[in-house]
Amino acid sequence: MSKKSLDAVGPPGSLIVKSQSSSNNAFDLSTGSQTDLSGLPLNIPIPSHLKPTGTPGSKLLHIERSHASFDSKILALYLYGQDYLDRVNKLLQIIQVEEAFDKKRLNYQGRDDRFRHALRKEKRFVQLAKEHNWDPDDMSLAETLIDIPGPFGLHKSMFLKTLLEQGDEDQQRLFTHRAQRFEIIGCYAQTELGHGSNVQGLETTATYDKNTKEFIINSPSLTASKWWIGGLGRTADHAVVMAQLFTNGKSYGPHPFVVPIRDLQTREPLPGRVIGDIGPKLGYQTTDNGMILFENVRIPHNHLLARFSRVNPETGEYIKPQNAKLAYGTMTFIRAGIVKQAREVLARASIVAIRYCAIRRQFADKDAPVMDSKKPAENPVLDYQMVQYRIFPILAQAFACHYTGVEMFRLYDESQRNMSQGDFSLLADVHASSSGLKSICTIMAAQAIEECRRACGGHGFSQASGLGALYADYLPTVTWEGDSYMITQQTGRYLFKTMRTLYQDRNAKLSPANVTGEYILRYLDNPQAKSNVGFSGDFHDVQGFVFAFGHRAAYLIAQATRKRDIERRTWNSLLVDIYRCSVAHCQFLLVRNFAQAVLHDKNLKSKPALRHVIQLVFELFACYTMDVEASEFLASGYITPRQHVLLRNRVYALLALIRPEAVALCDSLAIPDYLLNSELGRYDGNVYEKLVEFASREPLNGVKFNVNPWDTELAIGEPKLAKL
Amino acid sequence: MSKKSLDAVGPPGSLIVKSQSSSNNAFDLSTGSQTDLSGLPLNIPIPSHLKPTGTPGSKLLHIERSHASFDSKILALYLYGQDYLDRVNKLLQIIQVEEAFDKKRLNYQGRDDRFRHALRKEKRFVQLAKEHNWDPDDMSLAETLIDIPGPFGLHKSMFLKTLLEQGDEDQQRLFTHRAQRFEIIGCYAQTELGHGSNVQGLETTATYDKNTKEFIINSPSLTASKWWIGGLGRTADHAVVMAQLFTNGKSYGPHPFVVPIRDLQTREPLPGRVIGDIGPKLGYQTTDNGMILFENVRIPHNHLLARFSRVNPETGEYIKPQNAKLAYGTMTFIRAGIVKQAREVLARASIVAIRYCAIRRQFADKDAPVMDSKKPAENPVLDYQMVQYRIFPILAQAFACHYTGVEMFRLYDESQRNMSQGDFSLLADVHASSSGLKSICTIMAAQAIEECRRACGGHGFSQASGLGALYADYLPTVTWEGDSYMITQQTGRYLFKTMRTLYQDRNAKLSPANVTGEYILRYLDNPQAKSNVGFSGDFHDVQGFVFAFGHRAAYLIAQATRKRDIERRTWNSLLVDIYRCSVAHCQFLLVRNFAQAVLHDKNLKSKPALRHVIQLVFELFACYTMDVEASEFLASGYITPRQHVLLRNRVYALLALIRPEAVALCDSLAIPDYLLNSELGRYDGNVYEKLVEFASREPLNGVKFNVNPWDTELAIGEPKLAKL
Repeated sequence: MSKKSLDAVGPPGSLIVKSQSSSNNAFDLSTGSQTDLSGLPLNIPIPSHLKPTGTPGSKLLHIERSHASFDSKILALYLYGQDYLDRVNKLLQIIQVEEAFDKKRLNYQGRDDRFRHALRKEKRFVQLAKEHNWDPDDMSLAETLIDIPGPFGLHKSMFLKTLLEQGDEDQQRLFTHRAQRFEIIGCYAQTELGHGSNVQGLETTATYDKNTKEFIINSPSLTASKWWIGGLGRTADHAVVMAQLFTNGKSYGPHPFVVPIRDLQTREPLPGRVIGDIGPKLGYQTTDNGMILFENVRIPHNHLLARFSRVNPETGEYIKPQNAKLAYGTMTFIRAGIVKQAREVLARASIVAIRYCAIRRQFADKDAPVMDSKKPAENPVLDYQMVQYRIFPILAQAFACHYTGVEMFRLYDESQRNMSQGDFSLLADVHASSSGLKSICTIMAAQAIEECRRACGGHGFSQASGLGALYADYLPTVTWEGDSYMITQQTGRYLFKTMRTLYQDRNAKLSPANVTGEYILRYLDNPQAKSNVGFSGDFHDVQGFVFAFGHRAAYLIAQATRKRDIERRTWNSLLVDIYRCSVAHCQFLLVRNFAQAVLHDKNLKSKPALRHVIQLVFELFACYTMDVEASEFLASGYITPRQHVLLRNRVYALLALIRPEAVALCDSLAIPDYLLNSELGRYDGNVYEKLVEFASREPLNGVKFNVNPWDTELAIGEPKLAKL
Repeated sequence: MSKKSLDAVGPPGSLIVKSQSSSNNAFDLSTGSQTDLSGLPLNIPIPSHLKPTGTPGSKLLHIERSHASFDSKILALYLYGQDYLDRVNKLLQIIQVEEAFDKKRLNYQGRDDRFRHALRKEKRFVQLAKEHNWDPDDMSLAETLIDIPGPFGLHKSMFLKTLLEQGDEDQQRLFTHRAQRFEIIGCYAQTELGHGSNVQGLETTATYDKNTKEFIINSPSLTASKWWIGGLGRTADHAVVMAQLFTNGKSYGPHPFVVPIRDLQTREPLPGRVIGDIGPKLGYQTTDNGMILFENVRIPHNHLLARFSRVNPETGEYIKPQNAKLAYGTMTFIRAGIVKQAREVLARASIVAIRYCAIRRQFADKDAPVMDSKKPAENPVLDYQMVQYRIFPILAQAFACHYTGVEMFRLYDESQRNMSQGDFSLLADVHASSSGLKSICTIMAAQAIEECRRACGGHGFSQASGLGALYADYLPTVTWEGDSYMITQQTGRYLFKTMRTLYQDRNAKLSPANVTGEYILRYLDNPQAKSNVGFSGDFHDVQGFVFAFGHRAAYLIAQATRKRDIERRTWNSLLVDIYRCSVAHCQFLLVRNFAQAVLHDKNLKSKPALRHVIQLVFELFACYTMDVEASEFLASGYITPRQHVLLRNRVYALLALIRPEAVALCDSLAIPDYLLNSELGRYDGNVYEKLVEFASREPLNGVKFNVNPWDTELAIGEPKLAKL
């Protein structure tokens, strides 16, 4: 598709390029023209003649957009492809007019109302999915856009997934099909009050009684209580319960059992189950994370999910599973998804901060010439170097996660293909990288949301920023699917092993796709390698960054492996070093995958304007990351103190180069206003008008209060309290 | 007081040493024996025979405490003094039995109920303060302990303070005395929708009309709306409004006016005022931050606060203020308070994480010998080096802020004394340091809360951790009283100036208390200075750290000043460098003030056990900070790559040395359970029992839900929705 035809189809201000096929139902993702569906009245009588002072936000953003050296629509198309953008458009038209999917009201609601709204959303989602015949990609994207974690969340993911993957044929009939039709609602009960990460340590038991052909599910202690289980608190009637299997007096470790927990009609817990919601959380208030205790609950033999391991119903004999390695594939897939999600979170955070800082004005430039009598105009906050330094690298991180997310899914596919042909050579490398990337990307994204929120100044603290709710709901990702500070041990073990193997034999055979071995070999060949940067402009050599990050990672791995193997240090005394090895390895991957695109992506090569701006973003990511981690580059001897000064100067120069491109780069990330859900980050820039509207909807504004300290009446016209 | 007499008065498990005088009404701060005052029923029927598995938390903490090499009570006494501890005890006895001061219920409440509870708290506070004749120190400490930011907050602080300081004698009668008796409730209206940091840019106008002898207060635009004003939304009937003064056609900048805004009886806004609450926020939900627009509101001449600047009522002539420098004193005082508050926040965060991680068990040690048949026992999470690395430095930061907070108040007193004698020599140094310290301490404390929350694993995400609410309510401190990323320019300007002065004249006269000049001179004498560390044990020399941090700060200041003065760079292009100078300067101060205590504090010298453990904490603070910032120590040439390796090893060694002292160090910080408000961090260690109780009080557990996607009934027994 040529540039011309692209320009022709988009209405002014349109973010997303529409394909010819969808141009009939043109729909603009980003003009923020959605109607308010919250149903909340406007409680403050704002005089309608008042406008924000100075140039309107919409015009300021328009000017910003006109400064860019590239077309954000073409960049969006390059990043996401036409199919994805079409799908977003198609779904948005359905989703954003649904009252059940309104997000604005959540800000004003307490826990109870939020949960009800989420349940309503879940029901409506099921109806619409059926009505519009959504395929799995539609469903997944619709969930992303609606962005309200609800009580059916675990039913639709882990519960169904576990049934499908681990249930035998009979169990598909017995459970899966009913679950797919929402006749039963399930949850996935693994974590316990006293046991999270360490699945082997779970306390819940499932003891086989061959006389009655039943398993007895029991919670032997208070800490054995299942805890944090999404959808269990008030919703689910079935649970996949991970419990220690005992049969014939022997223990066989944790296995998955399907346990009915609530009466399908009355919704009361079944006998022997004590169930409840675990109470208020920092976020995820729309979900009923729950607890359950079992008092010797009996379930039939066919409720142990039996595709892999089974118990002979007559003898109680345990039959072992075939191949455990396949499980790593699923983990890798989930973790690649987390990298992709980090891209989206980083994009949302930086878009809000960058657009708002382009509008917000504060102080005149200290060096601005003073015109007599007239005060110098205030600067957009985005002009301040310190603001740029805090938020532009986050924009760059979004792009870095984009390329590494794409690469992780490619590797997952390749590794699944290889494994189906019996070749497991790629598995360890991909598993190790995906663990470390899960760690670094979640920590980076969580920090980014808060950094961007602060960069919005005072208004960042209003829920109107959208960043508070995003942060609160994103935080669990740092902890679940492998705690991000602990999971790096999996990466570390692999890095140590690779170092040992290649140290002993430089010709040891590695999978051709193994990039870890590549940088370790390069280091072993020349551990004294040095950067050849002589001027700050030399921090422009794309391949040079790849070598630098590889050298630094290998240096840390070599040091740590030495401590373990030669100095015989305990594993525990190396945990921080191991964490650092994992971070260094994953930063290498992020830089390397980004560099590959800059150097070799054919779609980019033919578009000089895009290639130029993408390379700028790459350089900022690489230089900024290198500066943050500079002590290790310096300590390894790879860069000198003088080069460190050049590096910092290069970061400053890059910030200035990104400045005119910043808003257009945000646009290219194609986050529709409905997903952004931020008055500060709106595509149309009408920030201040919308902040006032946001205030007007506060229900508290409908109540008057009695402030006399000696009067026990709180709200005027309501009954007095007996005492304060 | 001898150790013996101290031991004699404390009951077992008591944290706070009681003096002889208060030993009659003995009260234990920390056993967590408070009754639940929330009034919420227990909704989950937990079987009473179930207990947590393994050693009870209470016993685990007892064992931890017995491992310490010092007496935490004596350390508490050394840190806080008897008077303060007595005061805490006295107030706690009154406060923690008051239902109006119950904090537990807030977790379960929506905005509306939280606000009502806070208003109730404010009223009860006024009553008790009168009843018990609380002095200002009592009031301030009581607010800290109750820790519920309420709608009278700004009335009691900025409103009254501004009236007192800036009102003339008549105005004390007219406003202050009525405000002190709570006959009028005020707020402080400075920030506007479009203007936060830049007070000079405020849009609200106050135009003097000499014909009627009135000021006309007006909001010329939407962005002129006062915004974020605490207590304005639903509560205040008066406001101190900062507005641009115009008289006789000329502008004189922002001045404070007292403006009546609500009818004292009906609580309706007075004519020409549009008032409202600004809506939901990330935290501070108990406060009604508000907005106000003025439509040519007329107020009498005597409503301009007139102690400093005045307008002649007849002629409209403006009369200038005398001395503006005194205002810096107040700012310094507030910022010193923020450093002290950071100590408390860091203490709370690290106490929760350390106590809970001493109880929580997860995984066996990888290097633990495998006993046949028996699984190795799981480790307390606190044994993992990675966990120690994340939370012990935060404990050390609490101690660092303690000493620097004390020093800032001492300097404030000294500088006020000097100024009253016409000596302003200390003012600039203290003002610059307090700005930079405000920045670094708030950023450090906010990050610490989140780090400690994550270190608690999954349960950190429950509001039962207490860290979510602490974080949400602490965050504004990073932004207000000078945005922590912008305010460092004040520090930078001073550091540049000092560098220039001393560069030109090494003998330039500085105040004897000026420690900045000291380290800059040392650097100028020997910019090539190098650390003499040869072994990791050399990172033990207290004065050595002071020199190292001074050298690094001076190196950065010299570089940045050079860019400004020789390379003629713009101020804006140096903002990141300036920020770094400020951070380096303030880290020097934190290290230096801590070091002074370790080296010279007489109270410490006579107590070898305390001195030993305090020095360990100091070394951890200094080494950890040095490692985090290592690139600048390396780049300045002060340490070599080899010394960098030694430094990291020293940090690891210190973590292991702190390990047995950690829980006792927490105890010594004397945060009572009532203030901690965390089930994870409870003094008694009964974590799991209390998490279950916390879940049981969730009101949602009293409702049953209909999960059928095709049924519009949400809660069973409640009316159906018309549509989903």
